[in-house]
Amino acid sequence: MIQRLCIVGLGLMGGAVGLAARRSGAVGRIIGVGDRPETIEKAKAIGAVDEALLDLASAVRNADLIVMAVPVRLIPSVAMDVIKSTQHNSLLTDLCSSKAKVVGQVDQMVMEHKSSIRFVGSHPIAGSEKTGIESSAEVQLEGATCVITPTPSTDNEAFTEIDEFWKALGMRTMRLSPKEHDAVLARSSHLPHLLSYALINAQTDRSMNLSGPGLRDMTRLSASDITLWTDIFAQNAKELHKVVKEYGEELLRLSQEIEMLSMDGTPGAESARERVFRYLADARQRHDKRFQPAPSEEPPPEANLRALTTQILPSRPQP
Amino acid sequence: MIQRLCIVGLGLMGGAVGLAARRSGAVGRIIGVGDRPETIEKAKAIGAVDEALLDLASAVRNADLIVMAVPVRLIPSVAMDVIKSTQHNSLLTDLCSSKAKVVGQVDQMVMEHKSSIRFVGSHPIAGSEKTGIESSAEVQLEGATCVITPTPSTDNEAFTEIDEFWKALGMRTMRLSPKEHDAVLARSSHLPHLLSYALINAQTDRSMNLSGPGLRDMTRLSASDITLWTDIFAQNAKELHKVVKEYGEELLRLSQEIEMLSMDGTPGAESARERVFRYLADARQRHDKRFQPAPSEEPPPEANLRALTTQILPSRPQP
Repeated sequence: MIQRLCIVGLGLMGGAVGLAARRSGAVGRIIGVGDRPETIEKAKAIGAVDEALLDLASAVRNADLIVMAVPVRLIPSVAMDVIKSTQHNSLLTDLCSSKAKVVGQVDQMVMEHKSSIRFVGSHPIAGSEKTGIESSAEVQLEGATCVITPTPSTDNEAFTEIDEFWKALGMRTMRLSPKEHDAVLARSSHLPHLLSYALINAQTDRSMNLSGPGLRDMTRLSASDITLWTDIFAQNAKELHKVVKEYGEELLRLSQEIEMLSMDGTPGAESARERVFRYLADARQRHDKRFQPAPSEEPPPEANLRALTTQILPSRPQP
Repeated sequence: MIQRLCIVGLGLMGGAVGLAARRSGAVGRIIGVGDRPETIEKAKAIGAVDEALLDLASAVRNADLIVMAVPVRLIPSVAMDVIKSTQHNSLLTDLCSSKAKVVGQVDQMVMEHKSSIRFVGSHPIAGSEKTGIESSAEVQLEGATCVITPTPSTDNEAFTEIDEFWKALGMRTMRLSPKEHDAVLARSSHLPHLLSYALINAQTDRSMNLSGPGLRDMTRLSASDITLWTDIFAQNAKELHKVVKEYGEELLRLSQEIEMLSMDGTPGAESARERVFRYLADARQRHDKRFQPAPSEEPPPEANLRALTTQILPSRPQP
């Protein structure tokens, strides 16, 4: 049981961790460190913390667990402050979306300063394009997955304590090396974010105006904090480079299939149609398996449409 | 005023048009044509139609306006049935997401059969990845845009009547040629759909499992009807080919920027960072202008974070 949890940074994710920790009943006192008196008041008002301070040093001093809920570029300076402020063997973790660099930096700081702090990196896979503690209640940690990224220098007991903390908050946990984490997240999170920004930049003014809910949803992520995302792309540039190149090449291949589709009535168009249909069918099946696991009881729309054609055109042969 | 509106096809969009027409009070009687007794019962139950029939011929006979709310591949056969079933000078429209081919086909049929039917193509830009009339209430026509695509052979009065019909339903209307429509929608709708399917196919099993709300939202469109979307991609293949190729090439260019970002501490990495930041900033600005027009009163998160670093690190110089 964590008696004293200290959350450094009272933004979207700091607030979400505070709220989930409080709901879990698994922590004693929650102390927040904020940047401005208004933020501190908000954090207390929404119930994310019991107490909040502007001064990091006094907040972290006797904490059992310190969560650095700040953007990736502030981690080195916050970690240094934490190390300098406590002699206690507190657990320390972060919430960053890219891990290899951050974890390497903090591990090295702890070692160089011969600190008694026990650091283990975390990445709770949840969030929002919104920012600020006023949106923290929208972040759904319960039921989501938290990746924990120990290194060869991580203390086993520290890993177990961090693992238990996230589980107590209702999260599933998964253990990956920082490098494995970054390769996977490049694909599942950093690529989608980049596609979203690029999709906006691919629009003309007219196409922006003549768009429906499809474009809106496909570009929601481009409302994310641009400094944070430039940092994440830079931190994970090696892995992201690979998946963006791969995806770009796949689109060029698809554009050739679509060019063949345009050659109406040719055998090439017919076989391209078959391949494109299969491509969409595979994607839909994988999508539904992951995101819509409940089986629908409706007959597939395809069946209805065949029936419709048959009924309204009883006398003509169907293709 | 449309005294008698006939909607052929009681799926997602047919139901949405019926519901919006009824809410508008601008039409008299609404007659639906469905494929199965259950669909007809559902359409009546949700209030999308006053009456629904399985027989197209008797439903369209004296209609003032006939809306073909069927997938693009069924339009030729449904249009033929409509032409054969009425001597009345009814207005006829469709709801297809690709226009050049469909409009050309129906225009030609009307001419060849010397029909008194007056056809004008429409595309209400609204929808859902869901199918079936049970989801029609989720489709928001009011406030959305309907593109009307007349051709040189379109009767002016018919254009005006169609324009007034969609406006009566609360839609903004825009007039474009079928070819202009297809070029714009390739970018704003067909490209996002293809990206969504391709994004699922770019995932590994592990990355699918380790994904958050970002991937879920970026792939929602891949739950769309795959036969319908294979047809739309095929119908608009020429325009879609161009924008997919362009977007794929842009991603290869971005992958090079990201490769430069990975070369830590070099001047190349620094200038790549500047360009990537600018790229995201441009996208975010265009996104927010279109989709989040209300100005936020919160200070930008960047300002907070600078303040946080300054406060918790008062004695160290900031980069």
